[in-house]
Amino acid sequence: MNVDELHRDLILIDGLESHGESWSEAHFAELRDGGVTAVNVTLAIWENARETLTHIARWHRRIREHAEYITHAATTSDILAAKRDGKTAVLFGFQNTDPLESDLDMVELYARLGVRVIQLTYNTQNAVGSGGWEDGGGLSKFYGRNVVREMNRFGILVDVSHCTDETCLGAIEASERPIAVTHANPRSFVGDEVQLPMRNKGDEVLRQLAASGGIIGLSHYPKIAPDGPDCTLERFCEMVAWTVERIGIDHVGIGTDFCQAAQPTEAARARMFWVRTGRWSREPAFAISSSPFPEWMPNPAHFRTLTQGLVDKGFGEEEIRKILGGNFLRVLGAAIDESELVPAASPALVT
Amino acid sequence: MNVDELHRDLILIDGLESHGESWSEAHFAELRDGGVTAVNVTLAIWENARETLTHIARWHRRIREHAEYITHAATTSDILAAKRDGKTAVLFGFQNTDPLESDLDMVELYARLGVRVIQLTYNTQNAVGSGGWEDGGGLSKFYGRNVVREMNRFGILVDVSHCTDETCLGAIEASERPIAVTHANPRSFVGDEVQLPMRNKGDEVLRQLAASGGIIGLSHYPKIAPDGPDCTLERFCEMVAWTVERIGIDHVGIGTDFCQAAQPTEAARARMFWVRTGRWSREPAFAISSSPFPEWMPNPAHFRTLTQGLVDKGFGEEEIRKILGGNFLRVLGAAIDESELVPAASPALVT
Repeated sequence: MNVDELHRDLILIDGLESHGESWSEAHFAELRDGGVTAVNVTLAIWENARETLTHIARWHRRIREHAEYITHAATTSDILAAKRDGKTAVLFGFQNTDPLESDLDMVELYARLGVRVIQLTYNTQNAVGSGGWEDGGGLSKFYGRNVVREMNRFGILVDVSHCTDETCLGAIEASERPIAVTHANPRSFVGDEVQLPMRNKGDEVLRQLAASGGIIGLSHYPKIAPDGPDCTLERFCEMVAWTVERIGIDHVGIGTDFCQAAQPTEAARARMFWVRTGRWSREPAFAISSSPFPEWMPNPAHFRTLTQGLVDKGFGEEEIRKILGGNFLRVLGAAIDESELVPAASPALVT
Repeated sequence: MNVDELHRDLILIDGLESHGESWSEAHFAELRDGGVTAVNVTLAIWENARETLTHIARWHRRIREHAEYITHAATTSDILAAKRDGKTAVLFGFQNTDPLESDLDMVELYARLGVRVIQLTYNTQNAVGSGGWEDGGGLSKFYGRNVVREMNRFGILVDVSHCTDETCLGAIEASERPIAVTHANPRSFVGDEVQLPMRNKGDEVLRQLAASGGIIGLSHYPKIAPDGPDCTLERFCEMVAWTVERIGIDHVGIGTDFCQAAQPTEAARARMFWVRTGRWSREPAFAISSSPFPEWMPNPAHFRTLTQGLVDKGFGEEEIRKILGGNFLRVLGAAIDESELVPAASPALVT
């Protein structure tokens, strides 16, 4: 099988792309051109419940209006159907638990509205745990554990990409289903010279994540990638190989973190200000700068380049299928299929 | 000056009484009968912004409807005026930062609506810090520090009564004005045999609190008092003397924590369920039980008994004036008077 054939045949899943409120037909076309079968899109970070409902409503409308490109993923069957139909399946995701407003019952409500991935914290501390910008801090003893269990119950994948290592380990321990680091890199490989080294994960987190059946989606986002903005395709694929060697072929995926932040526009800058400060600060703790993705894969239309890179690195076909989507499909299946919600609600309500 | 004269002449301030949503004329009469000049009343714990606004609105109405008993305290001048007029001045307080909904700008809004005391956390972790039920956890690095500074700016007393020792120390360090433990006891004195030992404060917190000009309001609430439900007046006054000896006469006050929980009614039980679980759990982590206050001071009408106890313990008149209200008046003055709000807003808006 040549690279083009392999790439076309892949179930290709991107663990996370951000800034979902600004997605339009241009981006959907990029996803199609890149052969992306499914993507976890960020609908909310600092938004409260009411604001989040608006984003969810707009996304359901967006899916109706662009049905030739995209479809909603309520279960992994929908991802397989999208592959069959030549569409991209969209997993609704949050990058924070702020939309829950400390209300455990909101987990089920968001599940009913189609949300399938929730990151426990963004960069800072909340009632559930702590993000990597804090000086440590674990999963909170009561609400944090309760939220993880409730997500297990209602079929929402627990994402700990931005969390401290302590919170990651707490979530792995508390969760009855595999969890994900949808978009981060191994700190041991990348080192501390990148702009946001605290976004990457320590060795113990990677070990426990794999031992519990989970996955890390590796990212070429310049602020966390090896060599930062100078990360080459070869270097990225070295990181993939390094990680596979450490934690096994079944636990490594891709989570690009593609986002508007790559663009040096005023709107992107305003959006990044919101992402960096929410309502909890009036100035960003870190300078806001545009951070274009490397030219070898500036947007999802170029995913074939990555397939080629993995082939060149010496990965076999089955390994590439796992890395570029098979592993995420397995973890999503374990996390979201067969939840308490599915038999209880009519499919029409769930989608 | 005999005890009756001294008691009548006191500026008597109770650092905290809870369950403010249920206060009615009967309780206002108790406050009057006990000679209470001012009290920090809890308007919200787990309530979100919208729910908190309702509680604030109802309290402004309550004050209008019971103007013969109570008045609103926007500054310490209002407390002195209440003393002159034979009324009780009410300080609007929260026992949690949930009403802010992670929005720094809400601090000024609540200050404009008359709120003068906010406890950073209740028993569990939030975005600001951690409560004593958690296994440690400090003031959060960004939002936590920002909230403390914003409270300094707009004249809201920082209360850390339910916080972990780490969060208390972080708040003392971050605050530019003196802060308060409005209702708790020294852990070294009380020991671990009470029902909620994690509610009390360690020696280092007490030392730093005093060094920064702050105050601890001691409580005979049976779940945290020495000898629990068997705490005698003598034993309580021993704790007062012990604390004064450790941290100085200027840093000890009274914060009873009087609350509906003392009553074994269905309504009180339902209320305690809310207080213990909010929306973040479906079962309380600790058994909910009625906990009547000791017979020597079952409600605020009996405050004279405490004045007598302090006299019997050997405290001098000036010392008693400080313990029963003078110290809280000083800390409140330092924390709430002369805020950025006072010159900016018209008094009519502030009260």
